[in-house]
Amino acid sequence: MAERNAEEIFKEFKEHSIAEFFKKNRQMLGFSGQVRSLVTVVHEYVTNSLDACEEANILPDISVKIKEIGENRYTVTVKDNGPGIPKAYVGKSLATILAGTKFHRYVQQRGQQGIGAAGCTMFSQMTTGKPVIIKSGTGKGKAYSAKILIDTLRNKPIVNDLVDLEEAFRGTIIEGEFADVKYEMSERGVYEYLKRTALSNPHCQIMFVAPDGKENVFIRSVEKMPEKSKPTQPHPLGLSVNDLLEYAHSSQNSRKLSSFIVDTFARCTPNKIAELKEVDNAIDFDKDPKQLTWADAEQLIKAIKKIKWIAPDASSIIPIGEAQITKALKNILNPEFMSVVERKPKVFRGGVPFVVESAVAYGGSSGYISNGNEVSGSILRFANRVPLLFDAGNCAITEAVKSIEWKRYNIDLEAQPVSIFVNLSSVHVPYSGVGKEAVAKEEEIIEEIKLAVMDAARGVKDYIRGKEHVKFESGRYRTTMRYAKQLADDLHSLTGADQKRMEEKIEKLVAKHYPHLKKMAEEAEDEQNESDNAEGKTEKDEEESNQ
Amino acid sequence: MAERNAEEIFKEFKEHSIAEFFKKNRQMLGFSGQVRSLVTVVHEYVTNSLDACEEANILPDISVKIKEIGENRYTVTVKDNGPGIPKAYVGKSLATILAGTKFHRYVQQRGQQGIGAAGCTMFSQMTTGKPVIIKSGTGKGKAYSAKILIDTLRNKPIVNDLVDLEEAFRGTIIEGEFADVKYEMSERGVYEYLKRTALSNPHCQIMFVAPDGKENVFIRSVEKMPEKSKPTQPHPLGLSVNDLLEYAHSSQNSRKLSSFIVDTFARCTPNKIAELKEVDNAIDFDKDPKQLTWADAEQLIKAIKKIKWIAPDASSIIPIGEAQITKALKNILNPEFMSVVERKPKVFRGGVPFVVESAVAYGGSSGYISNGNEVSGSILRFANRVPLLFDAGNCAITEAVKSIEWKRYNIDLEAQPVSIFVNLSSVHVPYSGVGKEAVAKEEEIIEEIKLAVMDAARGVKDYIRGKEHVKFESGRYRTTMRYAKQLADDLHSLTGADQKRMEEKIEKLVAKHYPHLKKMAEEAEDEQNESDNAEGKTEKDEEESNQ
Repeated sequence: MAERNAEEIFKEFKEHSIAEFFKKNRQMLGFSGQVRSLVTVVHEYVTNSLDACEEANILPDISVKIKEIGENRYTVTVKDNGPGIPKAYVGKSLATILAGTKFHRYVQQRGQQGIGAAGCTMFSQMTTGKPVIIKSGTGKGKAYSAKILIDTLRNKPIVNDLVDLEEAFRGTIIEGEFADVKYEMSERGVYEYLKRTALSNPHCQIMFVAPDGKENVFIRSVEKMPEKSKPTQPHPLGLSVNDLLEYAHSSQNSRKLSSFIVDTFARCTPNKIAELKEVDNAIDFDKDPKQLTWADAEQLIKAIKKIKWIAPDASSIIPIGEAQITKALKNILNPEFMSVVERKPKVFRGGVPFVVESAVAYGGSSGYISNGNEVSGSILRFANRVPLLFDAGNCAITEAVKSIEWKRYNIDLEAQPVSIFVNLSSVHVPYSGVGKEAVAKEEEIIEEIKLAVMDAARGVKDYIRGKEHVKFESGRYRTTMRYAKQLADDLHSLTGADQKRMEEKIEKLVAKHYPHLKKMAEEAEDEQNESDNAEGKTEKDEEESNQ
Repeated sequence: MAERNAEEIFKEFKEHSIAEFFKKNRQMLGFSGQVRSLVTVVHEYVTNSLDACEEANILPDISVKIKEIGENRYTVTVKDNGPGIPKAYVGKSLATILAGTKFHRYVQQRGQQGIGAAGCTMFSQMTTGKPVIIKSGTGKGKAYSAKILIDTLRNKPIVNDLVDLEEAFRGTIIEGEFADVKYEMSERGVYEYLKRTALSNPHCQIMFVAPDGKENVFIRSVEKMPEKSKPTQPHPLGLSVNDLLEYAHSSQNSRKLSSFIVDTFARCTPNKIAELKEVDNAIDFDKDPKQLTWADAEQLIKAIKKIKWIAPDASSIIPIGEAQITKALKNILNPEFMSVVERKPKVFRGGVPFVVESAVAYGGSSGYISNGNEVSGSILRFANRVPLLFDAGNCAITEAVKSIEWKRYNIDLEAQPVSIFVNLSSVHVPYSGVGKEAVAKEEEIIEEIKLAVMDAARGVKDYIRGKEHVKFESGRYRTTMRYAKQLADDLHSLTGADQKRMEEKIEKLVAKHYPHLKKMAEEAEDEQNESDNAEGKTEKDEEESNQ
């Protein structure tokens, strides 16, 4: 075959829309596997509802309804009491990939990329040819409804049947029809996803109607909105040379590098500028930031790395909070014992701030019960309060938890009813894929998660040792007493002494020498009876358990 | 805090470019971890070179040079003898994400998405502020050089210093400077990547200059271009309702559904239309394809699933080929024994065709030797001839290989020098991430890989059993002979008979009863001596080993 020249080959050169790209690569958005695809749909809508409610300062009330309408074919309806979507934005919000209100702001939110809802519209269209139906109202004026499709070739919305409704409510109802999906009660299904969402969002009430018609309510356990995460100034240690240059070139108000730095970045005061000057007096802090070159920026970044900085401001990151996690865990897992830890903010990649919270819960509904009724530990992974159900092997949280020497904490993840809870909060969570199901394995993040989980594990260590000690010692008592019986028997044969009396005497002797053994054996027995009667040892939360 | 209304919130609504998105999420392109980031750069450039050469029907000659120029800072230069890039396309080719010659065609190639080279430009710019420097010539007229940057806000190229060169060569030289990367000799480094590329591309010659100045040449082992993969017609079983509709609505030449089907899809003849009519006589095959509704398309797809189809045409997929894999494995691993299998084309997701090839190689340089000098098996994963080094846990190939009961094949992946080679070829490989480091776990793919590997394993099973049998039986012979010595000794003590003579007699007796034992023991000994002299048992390939 003859060689072909470049001109001929490049005749076929074309540009493509991001929508076409994701249509061809739907697995990158989480649409792979029937069970997972359904969870992805619920996840995208619920995440958007939660973000919108928080943005508008409204305690979220969300209902999710899934109805089976054919083989591997379901409708999903998600309703919220959020601020609604203004009519003018409805098309772009639901049918333009990479459009939204969040991407460009340096603020901690669940959704960040403006992909989710448009991805669902595309998935509905690809699998059923149906538009997504939206009803939304902002509370002012009439609500409206519309049918939304996406023009994938141009990444543009197609809005049909846009009509005003008679009602004037506030909130959004989205209904989509999806095929090639499947509802399943499993560790990775929609029910589990919503349960975990309730766990990490105690301020939220979630109603779920499953395909079998059963209603589940995950009741709000905290009546207070979480603190609002504020757009924040980037911390100097988080800047790459490239970031610094981009900020400098787009600066509007500062004439000099010094004032630009103080105005733009966190923890930067005139004192810090003085410190930087001391470290490198060749830096020209009077320079116009718009004129900054790569070499200038590189020099400045080097100096920044040489001086000490206060850690990033915690107010930019809103973790769930120790008290809230405790309430939510009680509400949903009702464990015998737990230990909750909220760590101080840390930075990764030099300076992106993040906070890790961890809890270890023991007993109650903690852990995972397999079909064969075997109990084992389970890892509950969250990023910015969003449960991560898939790609566990690819996740920094899994790696950190697995790297711990659990024996030291008297914990056996293979065989004990233990739940390990980890929530990573950050303005920029480094996900390992567009589907956002796993946290990338950044070393600093793995290390910090490990420390947090070990911290929490230390809190339950003694309790678990206590439990095991009781088991062990009471076993010893019972064994000793068996020998006492045998000995009494033997003494009777040898000497003719009264067997019953001998036994009582030996028992007293043992009890006198090892009083704690007897007490423990009795306690263990009591507990056994109690749990046989299906009543936990722990005080119940005021609110009912939703399990 | 007061509630905020939707109008206020949506003031911040914006659209974003795909380049901005990937800049913020560089890990999705494979730029995470210093070692991996460097491999990603090499991978993107080498892949483009190989695709371009094949496209132009040129036997590829590629050289890769990596130079350390600072702490975690390297230049990467990749030179090929490909068709070159016409001057008019150089900006878009290297600095527009989702632009290229391949995305829209239904043809098997390594690169598909038009992301790679533009991603490298962005990564260079982000980490060093430097443009990528290109020199390219198409063989006609003068070659040129240029410096390329990317305007990430608009996903557009910035081309600087575009000048004609005096020379008039054909090919492309790309040089980029990258920081936050690291060269490492490891199972996941650049050297291993190129070695595996040579393994799966025996028609290609690769020269590699490592940062220490050492030159490695992976010599071409096949002088023939691989058959050229042709753009192909989609197979009816691979169509979703949505696909069918899109093809129908954009059809240009067909007035009737029947002729549209025959013209557009593979394996569709007028006879097949007749069969479809028999299955569902309500389908209107005279309808204008442009007027096809979702319901029509759904009905047609249902009928398509009910009749038998010939498998997709193998010519659309070009596997490496049994003979070529054999040559490449000899050339690079020089195993004692191997078994290579090329399977028939199969389909996944209903009808995307793919072909799996597998080989199991034993001995020689097969397997993996750890730092502690422990030998274990290794899995060499490829998709469309591209080595996959990362995300093994997320990959269908790993899952398939691990699910095999290796004991049945006398193979111990933990302890034997075994290499399991798997190459998946398809017009559309379903990668699990944009970084294309793992094949998504589609059930049909896992199943087919498993069958292919088991097929190959069956081929080496007897050889390995032979080896182990010899080890076992010769051990038995030696043990028996030890007893013979002892027995002769005892007989001498008891009877005074000559010890030496007794021993000879017993030895003869054993040899007479178990002649195969003696032979095996001798053979095993010979082999041991031979391998101690560092000479393999196998015939050497005509070409030199590059290892």
